[in-house]
Amino acid sequence: MTLTFDDFQTGHFGRFGPRHITRDEIIAYAREYDPQPMHLDEEAAKASMLKGLAGSGWHMCSLMMRMIYDGFLHKSASMGSPGVTEMKWLMPFRPGDELTLNVDVLETRASQSRPSMGIVTFRCTMLNAKEQTVSDMTVPIMFGRRTLAEKV
Amino acid sequence: MTLTFDDFQTGHFGRFGPRHITRDEIIAYAREYDPQPMHLDEEAAKASMLKGLAGSGWHMCSLMMRMIYDGFLHKSASMGSPGVTEMKWLMPFRPGDELTLNVDVLETRASQSRPSMGIVTFRCTMLNAKEQTVSDMTVPIMFGRRTLAEKV
Repeated sequence: MTLTFDDFQTGHFGRFGPRHITRDEIIAYAREYDPQPMHLDEEAAKASMLKGLAGSGWHMCSLMMRMIYDGFLHKSASMGSPGVTEMKWLMPFRPGDELTLNVDVLETRASQSRPSMGIVTFRCTMLNAKEQTVSDMTVPIMFGRRTLAEKV
Repeated sequence: MTLTFDDFQTGHFGRFGPRHITRDEIIAYAREYDPQPMHLDEEAAKASMLKGLAGSGWHMCSLMMRMIYDGFLHKSASMGSPGVTEMKWLMPFRPGDELTLNVDVLETRASQSRPSMGIVTFRCTMLNAKEQTVSDMTVPIMFGRRTLAEKV
């Protein structure tokens, strides 16, 4: 079954994961996209405000994307997203963390100009094993709608 | 010379790049973090709203981060960022694109509670070779301040 706009309603949608974070993947992402010493090197990280090796905030975003994809986007009529309304990095994430993605639907809005689609605004929070919120994102995603034929 | 909070002022800051985008890097990122068919497969991408293979929006964010790092963050007293105020994905980016990052300073604000730091809010726009805006991000970054001794 493909999830369409019509399958989403405001409220809690689901929890996905957990995903185990490794030192290797933190360093691999950092080397490619965010080679600040605090994301690459244990000693430099200890001396930084992160107080130890921690992943890039943009790595966190990439991990959220992957967990959204694996969680439900892969079986949806997604038509992409115009952007991110807000993204907060609240805590460091580190090697050994077990991260769970919590997804709530804040709003659903049918498109006036394009009746074949609607926009669902999600709030996605990443939690660590202590249920602390590591990051908090609000993102609208466009989805196709069920056709009248399919609704019958 | 290390760039500190005191070195930033509102207005145009710089342009960085260009960076040449390859098909391989688009697919490598997508495979790891955003394996939607439109980011992985030419035929699927042609049938999608992207009308041809294009990179993930989160790949774009990662590329912006790398160009910010290479452009100026590597030689700054950066203390990280609390998050992103807004991120707009305005156009697809594709294999063969030459992307340039334009950086403006929207605001500088000394911290009241922590006199050793200040927050600089940047607007970062990624432009393609036709000077079209591909993405548009507003992001605050915290920087250390010059000490009184260093100011002398």
